[in-house]
Amino acid sequence: MPSLRTALLQSSGRPGHVDTNLAALDEAARRAADAGARLMVCPELFLTGYAIGADVARLAEPADGPSAGAVARIAARHGLAVLYGCPELDGERIFNTARLVGPDGAALANYRKTHLFGDFEQEWFTPGEHPVVQAELDGVRIGILICYDVEFPENVRAHALAGTELLLVPTALMHPYQFVAESLVPVRAFESQMYVAYTDRTGPEGAFEFVGLSCLAGPDGTVRARAGRGEELIIGDVDTALLGASREANPYLRDRRPGLYGSLA
Amino acid sequence: MPSLRTALLQSSGRPGHVDTNLAALDEAARRAADAGARLMVCPELFLTGYAIGADVARLAEPADGPSAGAVARIAARHGLAVLYGCPELDGERIFNTARLVGPDGAALANYRKTHLFGDFEQEWFTPGEHPVVQAELDGVRIGILICYDVEFPENVRAHALAGTELLLVPTALMHPYQFVAESLVPVRAFESQMYVAYTDRTGPEGAFEFVGLSCLAGPDGTVRARAGRGEELIIGDVDTALLGASREANPYLRDRRPGLYGSLA
Repeated sequence: MPSLRTALLQSSGRPGHVDTNLAALDEAARRAADAGARLMVCPELFLTGYAIGADVARLAEPADGPSAGAVARIAARHGLAVLYGCPELDGERIFNTARLVGPDGAALANYRKTHLFGDFEQEWFTPGEHPVVQAELDGVRIGILICYDVEFPENVRAHALAGTELLLVPTALMHPYQFVAESLVPVRAFESQMYVAYTDRTGPEGAFEFVGLSCLAGPDGTVRARAGRGEELIIGDVDTALLGASREANPYLRDRRPGLYGSLA
Repeated sequence: MPSLRTALLQSSGRPGHVDTNLAALDEAARRAADAGARLMVCPELFLTGYAIGADVARLAEPADGPSAGAVARIAARHGLAVLYGCPELDGERIFNTARLVGPDGAALANYRKTHLFGDFEQEWFTPGEHPVVQAELDGVRIGILICYDVEFPENVRAHALAGTELLLVPTALMHPYQFVAESLVPVRAFESQMYVAYTDRTGPEGAFEFVGLSCLAGPDGTVRARAGRGEELIIGDVDTALLGASREANPYLRDRRPGLYGSLA
């Protein structure tokens, strides 16, 4: 049975300074690979910063832009898949995007946030239209959501129904929403029977205070790894044998009655 | 703004002894009314007991049977609405039912559990087909689910979309599923922005060990009242002003994108 060691890079980098953030990503990827990780998950908009106002437009790049190339080289150098958040330019539109790059540097997935949070995001970003984006890594079916997306049980359920085993969630969770990291994310993992790697920013940034508390939540309701409030690289294992046993013990996906859920869609 | 003081009767009564349980209900209703409660929520199958095997068929009654009459008289005597679980006989079929009786003794709602849990329930009960059953009490829109139902976010979301403000959930939560009471129920209240009154059985019964931990969870992610493991009557207030403020601060119901949730139904 495959097991996937996963690192979560809890950090805000240096908002507005892409080169600095790429260097931090490179250094963290080295440490994660040294610890045996095959995947590293970075926070929402890690490449550019989150609370950067109009700079979000200035720093946005196409999906195949220079920063994507830089991350691909970092991933290949360390033999480690990388999931990172960045503003994505597509014509005139900007998306709040998370990109997954494989351990060989190949682009594996590009997810555009579908549920935008608050005034800042709704001013600058176009919402994505594809709720379920997936990729395969070391035999594990991986899905991607971003921050506010995961707070809607519908989005996580759609992933479970599509076969996601490990959900990667870069986030920018701020005070006073600690309840989301502490309680909601482990419940999502339990109710939809999957692992969830939830990776937050940290500390003050503009008007926000990011709360950290990143976690790797397991399908059995346990938290396999949990960060504090500051910068931290945490590591946990995604074990598909444990996932299989948990799905036997908690048959939510089998016991659903879709015929009763018509009002949701 | 209406506020509804709600009592949760955490007790297993005496399984198999309906008269004893009616007497216990009467006594608890007196105490709840003395404390100013306008509603008391009892556990799943409180009237008869849960782990009673074939006795579930012997003790099942029609919705207008003698026990329903007895509960109506108790409610009217104390001027208190009562929600209680019971096996309901309808022709040859038995449903796992929760009935709501108003403070004047009038029947307000009859909900039949739609998501049956485990071998015992699936052997004896017919699943209900109506996911959303509601009633109005003192200006508060009340909904009903039973135990395993609430573990499916779809069921709670359907209530939120139908306007439920206070969800009553009689339950029979057993070891090792404490996570449901401790974490999942408060998350349900938060993600769908409503109050949830989750009332459990307690102690050993047949092959089960019920865990108590009943709670009144608020829409802001707080737990307004929480029981321990033993028999207990806990009381909390449902405040529709707090609910309105919480829905403003947490606009999940407005920010949903139903067009993306087609795979769920």
